[in-house]
Amino acid sequence: MQREMEALSRETQDRVCEALERIDGARCQKTVWERPDDGGTIYVDRILEDGDVIEKMSVNFAIVRGELSEAMKRAALGAERRLAAGDPRFYATGVSIVIHPRSPVVPSAHANYRYFELGSGPEPAAWWFGGGADLTPSYLFDEDARHFHRLHREACDAHDRSFYPRFKKQCDEYFYIPHRGERRGIGGIFFDQLNDRDPEELLAFVRTCADAFLLAYLPIVQRRKDVPVSEDQRRWQQRRRGRYAEFNLTADRGIAFGLKSNGRVESILMALPPSARWEYDGEPAVGTEEARLADVLRHPRDWA
Amino acid sequence: MQREMEALSRETQDRVCEALERIDGARCQKTVWERPDDGGTIYVDRILEDGDVIEKMSVNFAIVRGELSEAMKRAALGAERRLAAGDPRFYATGVSIVIHPRSPVVPSAHANYRYFELGSGPEPAAWWFGGGADLTPSYLFDEDARHFHRLHREACDAHDRSFYPRFKKQCDEYFYIPHRGERRGIGGIFFDQLNDRDPEELLAFVRTCADAFLLAYLPIVQRRKDVPVSEDQRRWQQRRRGRYAEFNLTADRGIAFGLKSNGRVESILMALPPSARWEYDGEPAVGTEEARLADVLRHPRDWA
Repeated sequence: MQREMEALSRETQDRVCEALERIDGARCQKTVWERPDDGGTIYVDRILEDGDVIEKMSVNFAIVRGELSEAMKRAALGAERRLAAGDPRFYATGVSIVIHPRSPVVPSAHANYRYFELGSGPEPAAWWFGGGADLTPSYLFDEDARHFHRLHREACDAHDRSFYPRFKKQCDEYFYIPHRGERRGIGGIFFDQLNDRDPEELLAFVRTCADAFLLAYLPIVQRRKDVPVSEDQRRWQQRRRGRYAEFNLTADRGIAFGLKSNGRVESILMALPPSARWEYDGEPAVGTEEARLADVLRHPRDWA
Repeated sequence: MQREMEALSRETQDRVCEALERIDGARCQKTVWERPDDGGTIYVDRILEDGDVIEKMSVNFAIVRGELSEAMKRAALGAERRLAAGDPRFYATGVSIVIHPRSPVVPSAHANYRYFELGSGPEPAAWWFGGGADLTPSYLFDEDARHFHRLHREACDAHDRSFYPRFKKQCDEYFYIPHRGERRGIGGIFFDQLNDRDPEELLAFVRTCADAFLLAYLPIVQRRKDVPVSEDQRRWQQRRRGRYAEFNLTADRGIAFGLKSNGRVESILMALPPSARWEYDGEPAVGTEEARLADVLRHPRDWA
């Protein structure tokens, strides 16, 4: 399973990079980093910065091996869950995709597909899949939200009709910013510690999701990338990027885990937006598009 | 003591606002917020945004009353300390000053002076003072660092010659960003849970510190504010502001406490920089001014 998930992650990395390079014209820069004195940790970062359409994109493949500390367990599993005591060795692999377009009317997107094993014996003491995809617009176009969610519902339904409702809800829960009382974006799907059936079946589900992501996201980029925008819209986008950074730095369990795993900081924090603003007391005026988005972030909707 | 510290905090707020308004020309906007259904919590925010010299300044006075939750105790005291079980009511007052100048060669500055009481009886079950001041340059001028530290050493020495060495060290420890292996800035002084002598003596010390802050900071602003700067310097400043946001959102105990105290988010997060950038792999080239700063942030120096 380790080899299969590594292959799927690398393929996904290739396909996402190629698709976005085609839209943008700019090329990703590749950086490979291996942890010194460790036979098993590698990061392959592919980064596109300062493109015409994409202001910052990171599509990172990683294999991480190490020992779980208590802080990492909390970060990985959430405070409410516990791991049986035992062999603290772990293995993780996956691909992480973060796309921050330049235009305020093109939403940011994030997707991540990962596989985790505990223990160092020939058979893992525990294993699971995690992943998901979600959309973070600065301006909300209902047809984009419906399209993104519909494609992910279809991907889920092809495997288990209970998946989409569960994973949509988990996504709204995961991307919550407690001190703001709002979500980072308009959601998508999020699943974690998925191990309730044959691993090959779950790998097939993850593959369907990874295929769905580009079909869900690219049409939105194509539809919006050339729409003229105002300076006020750009400023609102900068402020929404501030909230994005707030989520990633205060609430994201994946980032907290990465930072505590002696991981490569540059790779882990590449999800941060290229730029951000913080202004005082910037509640949008009632009846504006900005207020409509803020309302949906406080009260998630059913889109599919 | 509550009334005395409230008065000192309000005076300090007035003096800092007036001094920076005089340099900038722009005026602070005042916002008063009281927690509904609570006789004892008030925030008085004074904010200057988009000035010619000051891009964003917040000078906030607050009185906060409430009950300490476990999360707030951890945030207030650090994980290693414990409070005796007992009456969870608390009272806190103080002034918080954050100044983000526009120019990359004028350092950001932060100062905070606060007084804390536990318990709801006529005599507090516990009380302490906290506070400090620190400087966050994007470009390091040794004479500025020496001047800022010297003024704070003199303020400390006037009360206890053990203070500056202790509080300078605590400042370097407090403003550490673990995942970056560096400090937010070049330090200053930081003290907390100070209650080892008569409260009037400690109030006098806090007053000396608050007086020293403007004398320590204003000459630096005057000296640097009209120096021409390049676009590259502005970009480096934006990236340093990204680190500032990383510290505040991942490591600052005061902000964590505020967010967990059901406080006013806008007031608490006003310390965030007006803007920030995150770029991939931006280590400065060896031998540059940017690299010299980065080195000092990793290896704090004695400045006074």
